[in-house]
Amino acid sequence: MYDLVIIGTGPGGYEAIMTALRMGLKIAVVEKNKLGGNCLNRACIPTKYFRTGAHLVEKLSVVNEYGIILGDYKLDYTKAWEGKEKAIGFLRRSLEQLLKAKKTPVYKGTGKIIDKNKVEITKIDGSKETIEAKYILIATGSVPVDIGNIKIDGENVLSTEDYMDRLTSLPEKVLVVGGGVAGCELGYIMNKYGTKVYIVELMDRLLPSPIISTEISRFLHRKFKKLGIQTYFNTTLKEYKISDGKIECKLSNGEEITVDKILLSVGRKPNTDIDTIGIEKDEKGFIKVNKYMQTNFENIYACGDVVNSPMLAHVASYEARIAVNNMFNKEKEEADYSLVPWAIFTAYEIAHVGLNEEQAKSQGIETITGYYPYTYNEKAVDEHESEGFIRLVFEKNSQRIIGASIVGIGASELIHELAFAIKDKYTAKDLHEFIYFHPSLSEILIYATYDIVIGKLFR
Amino acid sequence: MYDLVIIGTGPGGYEAIMTALRMGLKIAVVEKNKLGGNCLNRACIPTKYFRTGAHLVEKLSVVNEYGIILGDYKLDYTKAWEGKEKAIGFLRRSLEQLLKAKKTPVYKGTGKIIDKNKVEITKIDGSKETIEAKYILIATGSVPVDIGNIKIDGENVLSTEDYMDRLTSLPEKVLVVGGGVAGCELGYIMNKYGTKVYIVELMDRLLPSPIISTEISRFLHRKFKKLGIQTYFNTTLKEYKISDGKIECKLSNGEEITVDKILLSVGRKPNTDIDTIGIEKDEKGFIKVNKYMQTNFENIYACGDVVNSPMLAHVASYEARIAVNNMFNKEKEEADYSLVPWAIFTAYEIAHVGLNEEQAKSQGIETITGYYPYTYNEKAVDEHESEGFIRLVFEKNSQRIIGASIVGIGASELIHELAFAIKDKYTAKDLHEFIYFHPSLSEILIYATYDIVIGKLFR
Repeated sequence: MYDLVIIGTGPGGYEAIMTALRMGLKIAVVEKNKLGGNCLNRACIPTKYFRTGAHLVEKLSVVNEYGIILGDYKLDYTKAWEGKEKAIGFLRRSLEQLLKAKKTPVYKGTGKIIDKNKVEITKIDGSKETIEAKYILIATGSVPVDIGNIKIDGENVLSTEDYMDRLTSLPEKVLVVGGGVAGCELGYIMNKYGTKVYIVELMDRLLPSPIISTEISRFLHRKFKKLGIQTYFNTTLKEYKISDGKIECKLSNGEEITVDKILLSVGRKPNTDIDTIGIEKDEKGFIKVNKYMQTNFENIYACGDVVNSPMLAHVASYEARIAVNNMFNKEKEEADYSLVPWAIFTAYEIAHVGLNEEQAKSQGIETITGYYPYTYNEKAVDEHESEGFIRLVFEKNSQRIIGASIVGIGASELIHELAFAIKDKYTAKDLHEFIYFHPSLSEILIYATYDIVIGKLFR
Repeated sequence: MYDLVIIGTGPGGYEAIMTALRMGLKIAVVEKNKLGGNCLNRACIPTKYFRTGAHLVEKLSVVNEYGIILGDYKLDYTKAWEGKEKAIGFLRRSLEQLLKAKKTPVYKGTGKIIDKNKVEITKIDGSKETIEAKYILIATGSVPVDIGNIKIDGENVLSTEDYMDRLTSLPEKVLVVGGGVAGCELGYIMNKYGTKVYIVELMDRLLPSPIISTEISRFLHRKFKKLGIQTYFNTTLKEYKISDGKIECKLSNGEEITVDKILLSVGRKPNTDIDTIGIEKDEKGFIKVNKYMQTNFENIYACGDVVNSPMLAHVASYEARIAVNNMFNKEKEEADYSLVPWAIFTAYEIAHVGLNEEQAKSQGIETITGYYPYTYNEKAVDEHESEGFIRLVFEKNSQRIIGASIVGIGASELIHELAFAIKDKYTAKDLHEFIYFHPSLSEILIYATYDIVIGKLFR
């Protein structure tokens, strides 16, 4: 009997493996697909790989300012795809090698919990095997959803996973359905590699999420316009017809566009076809867990996209650490989602933590904000990366920071400074008076707090 | 009579201007050279500009992994130099325009304090003008030193300032005297733009400073070797002879090398020829100030390289904010140098804050350290930037963080997270359990603390 069987090796399963092995536990792993799960193989990591490439393509337009005089160059997305495979292959093999070195069995197949201590694995060849465990962690993640009239077929109409798994060369024209994270990330990538990109979004803006301020949506939208990415808001794809490899699309606003592929990026649903023993789910289909990440079976825990918390890789990892701790340690830990940093890599790096102005307002919190553009930040200027801004949100009376949004280079790292600052209840003055390296992007914190702490330049 | 006259507009003067204008003070500025001082015009900012270029040159070797297929390209350092001039010109004009908009007089010339409330300015044409001020801030910075037998002539033997001001094209071969910050930064830049670089260093390693661990020096040295930068430790330039534009150099180890230029980067000295009224200096020639940044004249303050604190731009800015506050506000602030982040941009980005292992040991502090290489960090892999590591230093019993060193991409920003963590006495567990965005470089903090918090993978 294993101490712990982990079903799924995405960011939740991965972190559970790391923690459990370091705790000296006897574990086994069940994975129906590639090690590393969706995040490593078909989402976070390959997306950021391609985004690095897309941003480098954009960067080529300024390299002459650094005395790099390029001749002709061409873009070969297939090469980028191969590079992506190499990068994620390296990371996957690192995990494989670790499991091998630690003699951890990996059961390749679909796991089903058939008893509170038993997981039945159905292998690719149809054969079954049952293993026993004191504890079980469900980390089976999520799958893309399709909507109403638009059916993912993996050929003409792609899910984001199809995109990563199979699209080794890009279409000439693409319609992206959904202007959320995946739509904005993949839309930018395709744009920079030469595809004509159309995005339809049901809501009235890009990234229509409460944590994203309208200020950010507008800023990104202006950039998309410059890049030639065509967006349709308050619009849906009404119907489409595929003929001779071309897709004629009718939008709800009456416009018609012909594209080569449709990319559907409208969200994901939990992958909870996992048991025969009555593990409870909530009304949305997520596995119900308490604050210790425990299901209605005391030895069965769940983490990541299968539970109803932010569908983010790092939330899955965080929950996995908590789950494994709570299985084996007396001192229990509770999940706390008040400080989850969030970032997306599209035409800009965008990051957020805590509350934005609109969220604070809706909670009845009076705020003051600090703003500073990247325009005059010396480091940003040195890097020809001076598009962007920071918006800090403070509770008005205490001047304590409660949220931060950053758009621009480095945003996804800088956001952690602000997360620490929120955790430790820094005031605008604390941020203003700290010593930041010069020149650094972090210095923006001095300037974004000047108005509040010292006074305005122009009154 | 002005409320405040600021002598020098480097990072100290600049920050004093920002603070004073926002406080609504009537100020005047004295600058003998270009607005923005040394940091903007001939040090920090142009160095990071060229370093961005040098790193981009290095990056060209991996762009094919992103499907960017380059044809022939060439490097034209003169174009890079022009780009640098544009970038710093933009920043300088921003300051000029602000001063103009705020109707702040700029006295171009050398300021001398001839009375505790009077500054005499000697203009470029030799004419003199005297202005009066309630308070005076001395922010006159520092100048490069030469040593013994090596005389800066601005033609064959260059200071780092000569390098920035005049070297519009690079020599074929250069001898850099001094393997400290400026030597390693400019040495890397010249190397990537095609110059054969030799570095002689009196001490036994690159970056021979107590805050830089020998681990970092070794790591950088390995990279320099790969890049073909030739280093000589425990070595000095014994003598040299200039003939026909070539410089024959004899090193103290007996070797002889012929180069086109010598770049002297062995340090700087305070620029304190500033008064006739007896402002006190210390035995090293720095202006003496108390913890409020006040000289022996109660209305005259000093900040930056002229006082005996770390010779760093951001320390100057920090001191300037304190000085201006202490002049005009009742609540006095004291300078605290316990958390000064430090970074250098050479073949790697290297950053440090707090104590390293060796420093802690010399202070009798028992430590444990956390280490993690960039190798397996997904973000670093995605960016083909996986050379680097982090070393965290904790006080052994409390497991509270007391220092951090980072080598690799993003180091100069990430270091601020650690600075916040040290300030707030985070334990290894605090760092381990925080939620970091995935994938981010910041996640390294989870992995660098695993051994300490959970246990080792292999015992």
